[in-house]
Amino acid sequence: MKLQFQKDAIVNGINIVMKAVPSKTTMSILECILIDASSNEIRLTGNDMELGIETKVEGQILEHGKIALDAKLFSEITRRVSSQNSTVTIESDEKLNTTIRCENSVFNIQGRDGEEFTYIPYIERDKYITLSQFTLKEVIQQTIFSISPNDSNKMMGGELFEVNENQLKVVSLDGHRISIRNVTLKDHYESTKVIVPGKTLSEISKILGGDNEKEVRIFFSSNHILFEFDNTIVVSRLIEGEYFRINQMLSSDYETKLSVNRREFLDCIERATILIRENDKKPLILQVSDNTMELKLNSSFGSMNADLMIHKTGKDIMIGFNPKFLIDALRVIEDEEINIYMMNPKSPCFIKDEEENYIYLILPVNFNAASV
Amino acid sequence: MKLQFQKDAIVNGINIVMKAVPSKTTMSILECILIDASSNEIRLTGNDMELGIETKVEGQILEHGKIALDAKLFSEITRRVSSQNSTVTIESDEKLNTTIRCENSVFNIQGRDGEEFTYIPYIERDKYITLSQFTLKEVIQQTIFSISPNDSNKMMGGELFEVNENQLKVVSLDGHRISIRNVTLKDHYESTKVIVPGKTLSEISKILGGDNEKEVRIFFSSNHILFEFDNTIVVSRLIEGEYFRINQMLSSDYETKLSVNRREFLDCIERATILIRENDKKPLILQVSDNTMELKLNSSFGSMNADLMIHKTGKDIMIGFNPKFLIDALRVIEDEEINIYMMNPKSPCFIKDEEENYIYLILPVNFNAASV
Repeated sequence: MKLQFQKDAIVNGINIVMKAVPSKTTMSILECILIDASSNEIRLTGNDMELGIETKVEGQILEHGKIALDAKLFSEITRRVSSQNSTVTIESDEKLNTTIRCENSVFNIQGRDGEEFTYIPYIERDKYITLSQFTLKEVIQQTIFSISPNDSNKMMGGELFEVNENQLKVVSLDGHRISIRNVTLKDHYESTKVIVPGKTLSEISKILGGDNEKEVRIFFSSNHILFEFDNTIVVSRLIEGEYFRINQMLSSDYETKLSVNRREFLDCIERATILIRENDKKPLILQVSDNTMELKLNSSFGSMNADLMIHKTGKDIMIGFNPKFLIDALRVIEDEEINIYMMNPKSPCFIKDEEENYIYLILPVNFNAASV
Repeated sequence: MKLQFQKDAIVNGINIVMKAVPSKTTMSILECILIDASSNEIRLTGNDMELGIETKVEGQILEHGKIALDAKLFSEITRRVSSQNSTVTIESDEKLNTTIRCENSVFNIQGRDGEEFTYIPYIERDKYITLSQFTLKEVIQQTIFSISPNDSNKMMGGELFEVNENQLKVVSLDGHRISIRNVTLKDHYESTKVIVPGKTLSEISKILGGDNEKEVRIFFSSNHILFEFDNTIVVSRLIEGEYFRINQMLSSDYETKLSVNRREFLDCIERATILIRENDKKPLILQVSDNTMELKLNSSFGSMNADLMIHKTGKDIMIGFNPKFLIDALRVIEDEEINIYMMNPKSPCFIKDEEENYIYLILPVNFNAASV
């Protein structure tokens, strides 16, 4: 095999497939990237058996063939080439000795037989949806923080993707909160409901360019999901089982509704957390009255009080939250002004917009009202 | 005590004195910053008993007094104030309860008695030199990497500062290399010779603005060194003892002299180190002939070969180095073209300029010539 690339093209391709190369594994072949130039295209593949990524790279095939190269070495050698326009030449002999030439340096490393490498599984492409790269990236970033990957309940480590006609609903939850994004698609599609592993989604959001003009096609099969965009396909196993019934946890009743400037509210809470060290479960108390909300936090380091201007309808309320959960939701919302709906100090609060494009349910925490 | 600051002024002051606040200590008062507004100036002080930093901060004194505040909390609270122009108010009562007000938030933390805090020692100011902040910062950065702070020989953890008339010589060394910078001062000064702890120098180089127009004054006493610049003084203990006699290790004899493009040489060596993991002592072999230098490195991961154009006078030579030592020196030299002087594969090589503004001595390593 003998191939020639522009530095930028090969480095970019490696960066994409590296997302599926496990950092630790007992199967050393998985630490490799497969370079397949046996046909008239050059394809790189990384595959950790749960998640597989394949991407097409621009380059010249001087001699057909395929080889698996240690991903880390291959990536570092090509990245270190100083100039973007330098040519990188990769050549392997029958003994799989591989030479990587770039600028004035020649590297010799031992490759492995491409046949040892496990290809990405074949997926039927009938059920699918299409959305923009921008939207998919955004939807993932706005929900991924509330998965719970280490929970004994596997489904908490994934996100629900539910399609109904022209609606895509994405849901993640841990024991304390639920994050929901509703997206209107351009077309109507066949209904479907799958649970996608959080790791897959977080790697995809890193690869996606975030371009609003470019599209992603998502294909669903019974055990797998396939994302296709640009020159890349990402295939992941699904999490088996039926997802939590979240509809019964959602409610549109409320006793108190308030609107507040998101940035100011977020800044205040972040400032309050200075007084908390990790694993230190101090609640942030919100005292909501007519035009102001008072924030209070007490810890062994000291106390903080802050006042925020709000618009309120309904009853006054005093309620406590884990400040981290509020911060996570407030950081990903883009609205300048947000609405918060509360029932009582024991019931979940909802941060959501009028159209319910986003819904963040957060459970309050108990606090000792006497000590506030 | 009641003081008022612009956010920027107080944050900047805290950042400076924080460099002398130890991250771990058994004396909890050392984890504090002293705010002293008992006179007509506001001074912040951090002091870990080896290194003390005091800086003057612009602000309004509404009520005189002094207090010691937990450095980490104090720093985080002021840094979190969103706007640069916000006013920060600090107020302490007789019980040392301290209130920090900024924007819409009020923090209450417990302060400590300023009298518990250890002031920076008083230093006689007769022996001194003056140089630009830029030069001092540069000189430290160009030598600090070859100290050996964990060596049983304490002097290896410091740097020699030697003044002779209008010459300042700064030297650092570990068991494998020596770094020397010679600086010509504007005036003639009294001769002196002290060993300054590496930690002091590295903290100072972080605080120094690097302005060529601004000066630093360095005062020498028998046990201390004092740096004075802008509104700040830094006082450090010296390392006791007599520094290594390095003159007998320096030699101007050579059998081979070569000049090479610094950037290209550095890039090549850095690329070669891809094949080395930490603690993996593989030498980089240089094979110097008339117009080219070949670089070779072999490891369990593979091999690299590279060719560089050079100018050479004298004998051909094959010599091995720890690539890290070459990288450290090449990174801090600013010349585009550098000169390297070698005697034989067992004797130190010297990288230096004609005027000997910088001299980097590096010991070669043994290698098995048969395996190259």
